[in-house]
Parts: sequence; structure tokens; C-alpha cells
Amino acid sequence: MMKSGTIALLTDFGNEDPYVGVMKGVIATISPGTHVIDITHKIGSQDVVRAAFILSKVFHYFPSGTIFTVIVDPGVGTSRGAIVAKTRDYYFIAPDNGILSLVLAGKEISEMVEINNPKYMLAPVSDTFHGRDVFSPAAAHISSGVPLHCLGPHIQEYKKIDFPKPHVGKHLIRGRVLFADHFGNLITNIEASLLKDRKIGLVRIGGYMVHQINRSYIESVPGELLAIIGSYDTLEISISHGSAKEYLGDISGMDVEVWFGAEGIDTGVLL
Amino acid sequence: MMKSGTIALLTDFGNEDPYVGVMKGVIATISPGTHVIDITHKIGSQDVVRAAFILSKVFHYFPSGTIFTVIVDPGVGTSRGAIVAKTRDYYFIAPDNGILSLVLAGKEISEMVEINNPKYMLAPVSDTFHGRDVFSPAAAHISSGVPLHCLGPHIQEYKKIDFPKPHVGKHLIRGRVLFADHFGNLITNIEASLLKDRKIGLVRIGGYMVHQINRSYIESVPGELLAIIGSYDTLEISISHGSAKEYLGDISGMDVEVWFGAEGIDTGVLL
Amino acid sequence: MMKSGTIALLTDFGNEDPYVGVMKGVIATISPGTHVIDITHKIGSQDVVRAAFILSKVFHYFPSGTIFTVIVDPGVGTSRGAIVAKTRDYYFIAPDNGILSLVLAGKEISEMVEINNPKYMLAPVSDTFHGRDVFSPAAAHISSGVPLHCLGPHIQEYKKIDFPKPHVGKHLIRGRVLFADHFGNLITNIEASLLKDRKIGLVRIGGYMVHQINRSYIESVPGELLAIIGSYDTLEISISHGSAKEYLGDISGMDVEVWFGAEGIDTGVLL
Repeated sequence: MMKSGTIALLTDFGNEDPYVGVMKGVIATISPGTHVIDITHKIGSQDVVRAAFILSKVFHYFPSGTIFTVIVDPGVGTSRGAIVAKTRDYYFIAPDNGILSLVLAGKEISEMVEINNPKYMLAPVSDTFHGRDVFSPAAAHISSGVPLHCLGPHIQEYKKIDFPKPHVGKHLIRGRVLFADHFGNLITNIEASLLKDRKIGLVRIGGYMVHQINRSYIESVPGELLAIIGSYDTLEISISHGSAKEYLGDISGMDVEVWFGAEGIDTGVLL
Repeated sequence: MMKSGTIALLTDFGNEDPYVGVMKGVIATISPGTHVIDITHKIGSQDVVRAAFILSKVFHYFPSGTIFTVIVDPGVGTSRGAIVAKTRDYYFIAPDNGILSLVLAGKEISEMVEINNPKYMLAPVSDTFHGRDVFSPAAAHISSGVPLHCLGPHIQEYKKIDFPKPHVGKHLIRGRVLFADHFGNLITNIEASLLKDRKIGLVRIGGYMVHQINRSYIESVPGELLAIIGSYDTLEISISHGSAKEYLGDISGMDVEVWFGAEGIDTGVLL
Repeated sequence: MMKSGTIALLTDFGNEDPYVGVMKGVIATISPGTHVIDITHKIGSQDVVRAAFILSKVFHYFPSGTIFTVIVDPGVGTSRGAIVAKTRDYYFIAPDNGILSLVLAGKEISEMVEINNPKYMLAPVSDTFHGRDVFSPAAAHISSGVPLHCLGPHIQEYKKIDFPKPHVGKHLIRGRVLFADHFGNLITNIEASLLKDRKIGLVRIGGYMVHQINRSYIESVPGELLAIIGSYDTLEISISHGSAKEYLGDISGMDVEVWFGAEGIDTGVLL
């Protein structure tokens, strides 16, 4: 793996406060010239699952050698660990709270350490802002060439969390809405690969029915719900010239059903 | 034109999602070292006209050679084209939906192509996120020296859209509010050049009257509406120590009249 | 002081408009290769005091030589000055409205000038956007090596503003909430140093009592108020798994009392 000189940040710190800017100041101090890319800082407060999902869907668009620094950290100040995992192509730095579960699943981890060497942290380490005091310094030191084993001892295990998987049956797949994006598109956990080469009968969500998978957002009647394979390569529920989130109301965790074949259209029978 | 190594992004993607971050990952992968500047990503969803206006007002503050990548793209996934236009000083990349109408108006276009060569796109190209799969790769390849004609065939025409122009009469100019900025200043389509060296009688908006053009936001009585030549070099309606947007309520498309000379003050006669 | 090649921006310009992007375009034009870090642009509109506080708390996390460009500027277009102050480690550029009061307090200023040389501004200078026309050019020229005295005449004084200090008594400290952060944590003006090595009896805020200073956000009962030394190294009022701001309602300027020793617990007697 080549050094890319890139650190990619994914946090729930928002843009209102100086928290992200301070992390960049720390990185620029330790490792001048490192290129920092914001993935987003608008993960819902302490929404570890959403951050895990987004990370797993976007990491491969970044240069080989990118150091992902992922901080959604309700346990800051407790004894939860801070870890770095190195795969063939990337580094992943995060609190050990399960946030790396999805991105590391099925990947070979070539090296993994717990960050506990105060030499590579700011002093003193606060109880509230390890993004500044622990994670940014670790990322910057790795970017400037410090070997992982200097940061702390090797570890074999990291925390894993369950992620809501769709129910896949013969006639239907039942998944759920994970979150809405900025446009009001509803991102589901139904992977495109589950729908490939299958004849879709209908898609049901919140009492509504959609009868096909669209190829574009605007090929439907304006104001009508549509289903589409979205930017995360999963099924999305959208609305032409509008926001599906506004249309459907409170959507978090809402069920989405995809029925296959013609028989899906006129039956409400669940599996 | 020198290469500036700068890509400037203007989109309606917002800051909540990883969409912009992913575009930067794609750019850093294809063209390491390219400097990316965010103009803003908070254009109202699918507001092509506002993006066109902002682009036309800000491009000249960027280094010669900047590659503007402008994505407000309700037609993503349809057959609308994707284009690059090269002028004397800049490159402009966008969906061919009229968003470049204002910035290209009156400029000599030295070269223009439709982007259709899959070699310079990500594979596969999604139907929902050409910012990632088409536009960012095109910008990055241009930044790293790929000639335009490699991206696709030369074209002579691009889509143009009408832009609301003010009515200019002998005694008054009637324009409209385009949008409100973050401070609640109302940006109008009345160019400063239309007001130059003329004696302003009054400015009318939403039933209110303002009797002069201010030189600063705070030289008025706090809480009072004022008119000023703003940061877009157009007439703005503002409020001293407050938000004109909150004061006037729903302002989109609201008429603004500038009456010239003393006779403007006591007449309500329209032209 | 070494040149760091870093400009750090702190403004109330928000992220909705192209204002910050344009400043970066101006900087890239004048001083290519300069690294720009956003501290935040979401300071409340014209909240000079909050910007002053944040600047004073974060500057030391940035590389030596950083050029801080701090623009919360209700007086733009009036005769208020624009200044640059150089300390041992940093440059500070701002309108002369008191925004540098806290960060410069107690520091030796090695050089200070008023920016008034039009050669180092854009032309023409607008009345509404000195961030673009005056401050960004000044920062970029300093970054590219222009000596301060070229920007304008040396000055000895700059405007200072009062900052709300806590009342420190024998048995209690009475401070106030300065603002809430993105997580709903309430940032107070009670410095951690005032609490060091003292036995806390209780903390009172908005009719509620908290009986200890926590070490982490989640060691309390979920939904309960807690007190903690926060990321600004001041006392913060937070809520476990929630937002103290939502819990307490309108919190701006709210009193916070820290009572020392056991006697604090059962007395409501004010000093």
C-alpha cells in the first residue's frame, strides 16, 4: 500500500462548532501537507449504525492508502478502546464501538492495534474530545510514517455490532428504511444485488405501492413515489420533484417490501 | 490558460450526506494534489436558476484555469447530456440543462464537448449520481491534463434557459427577489450598473418603502428595512441588525421597484 | 516564527452561500498552494463575543505561523478599521471591533497594523463584503510573504470588549451559559482552572441540581443532567444520551452556579 497522504474524516461533530476545524489544525501541526477530506460531519448525534453503513459504502472511492478517521463516540471518556485497523488498501481509525463492523467484515486485516501510547496523543487528553486529542494525532502520525505498532499493542479482536439485514424470501424481500438523505430520498438496506435479474412485482412502503424500479428520478409522474437503485447501490424510495421523507412522514425504521413476479401485485399475504 | 490545479464545486448536494466527500475521494484518486474548493453545496434542491446566477457572479474570483464543476441535476439518469465548455480563462463542467447559460453568455467558447467516453467515467455509471461517476472524473482528468476532445465529441450548442430580467423603464426599474442569503439579505436581479449615477427616489418591496441606497448595513435605524448594493453587485434589501427575510415573510419572486427622482416618492402609478 | 502556509477562517458567513468559497478563490488566486482550514462559519450572525471566545480557545491547536482570519463584522461598510496583529506564533486578521480581545489578552504583540493600502485589496472594495475584498487578500498576501508594514500603518491600540466573567466567591462561582454546541452541550464561562482541586458540592442551573462533575458523558443515568469539563476546558452542562439545550429550553445567558463543599448541597443562600 502506498501512502496517499489523505485523511478522510467521518464524524457526528456537525459544522456549527470548531471541533472539526481544530482536528484539522492538529493534523496540520503534526503532519504538514496531509490532505484532509470531509466525508461528512452530519451523522446524526451518536448514530454509530448510520456511520458504519456510510463508511462501508464509500471507502472504496478514496485513494489507496487513505486513513479513515471515523468518530461517532458516545463512549468518549469511558474505558472503550481506540483502534487502528490496516487492510490491504486502507487504514481505519475509530473508537472500538462497532463502527468498523461493516467496513471490515470479510476483509483481511493485516495489522490492528489499540491506541494507548501517550507519546502520540495530545497532552493532557480530555475526557470529552478524543477526536482532537487521540484520533487526529494518531491519523496524522500514521500519515507522517509512524508504524502502527508504535501507537499501542497489537490486538486480534474488535467490537462488532449487528446491522439490520433484510428478510429474503422466495416471493419477497422485507427490508427497512435506514435514513433519509438531504433530498428526502429514503435509503434502505436492500442491496441492489438482491434485486438483480429478478422481475419486480411491486414495492410496498407505508401503505403505498410502487410498481416498478425506475432508472431516473424524473421519469415518474411528479409527486409520485418511485423506487430506484440509488447512490449507495441499495433500493431507494424517492419522489419525483419532491421529498419522499416529507411525503411519508416519520420514516425511520419503516418496513419496505419488494414483491417479485406478477403475483406480488394482488396479494397482501405476508410470508 | 495556465493549469491552476483547482476544481471548484457548486452543487445542491448539501452537507448532510457523504456525496461531496465521495466526489473529492474520486478526484484525489484520479488526480492527486488537485485543490478542491467548495463554492457551496446548499443550492436549493434542483434550483438550476439559482446555481446559474451564483456561478455567473463568483467565477471571476477564482484562479485562471479553475475547473468549475456545477451539479444541480434533476435530469440525472435521463438522456440529458453532460458537457465541458472551455473559455479563455476557465473550464465549466455541468449537466446540459441550462445551468451554464448565464456564465457563458457573451463569452467566447474556445472548445466545448459532450462527455460520453466511458474511459473517463467510473464503471459502472449509476443512474443517480453522475457527480461521482461522470462529472468528478471528468474534472479530475482535465486537471491532470487529459485534452477535452478525449472526453467526447465537440459540440456547438448547449441548452440555454431564460433568466428573470428586470423591467427597466424611464422612471422605475421593476425587478424581483431571487433568494435570501444566510443573513436574511434579499438578493434581487437589479444590477448595480442599472442604478449607477441615478437619483433614487424610493425602493418599494412588499408594501414597504425605503428612501435611499445605504452604504452599510448598520447606518440605518435598527429593525428598519434598507437597500444596499450587495456582495453580488446587485440591489439587496436588508434590515439593520436583523433579517429582511424574517421581516417580510415569504419573499421568493417578490417584486422590487426602484423609482428614480423625487417624483417617485409620492406616486404609486405603475409604468 | 516559520511560515506555516496555513490560513484559518472563522466567520459567521454560514455554508448556504458562496461567500466562503469566494474567499478561498481569492486566496488561491493571490497565494496558490496556501492551505485553508475552516474553523467554522456558523458563528451566530454578528455574534462577536462568541467568535472571540472560540478563537481564544482553539488557536493554539493550529500550526505556528497560522494566519487567523476572523470575520464577524456588523460594521462592514462603516469606518471601523481592519487590523492585523502579529504575536510570537500567529497572525490575527479581523475587523477592529473587539473580536481579538480575548485571544490577544496577555500576549505580546510584536507588530500591529491597520489595513488600508488599496494595493493589497481587491478593486473596487465593496461596502458589504470585506471578507472577500479586504481580509482574504490581506491574509493571502501575508501568506505569500508581504511584510505587515506594507498593508498599512503601524498602530498601538485595538478595540477591546468586555467579556462576561464569572463571579468567584468563597463558597460558589456564578457563571453563565455562553452558548450550546451542536450536541446540545451548554458551554459556560467557568474555566476548569477555577474548579481544580476543589470539592464540588453541587452545580445549579435553571432550577436543577447536579451533584458532581462527571468524567464522561455517559456515566450518568440517561436523560439526566450532568456537569463535565468540556472540550473548551470550561464547565459544560450536558445530558446523558440527549441534549441539555432541548431539556432546559432557552438557555442563552442562563446562570450556572457551582457550590463548593458539602454545605453547598442544602443551602440556597446566595453570596
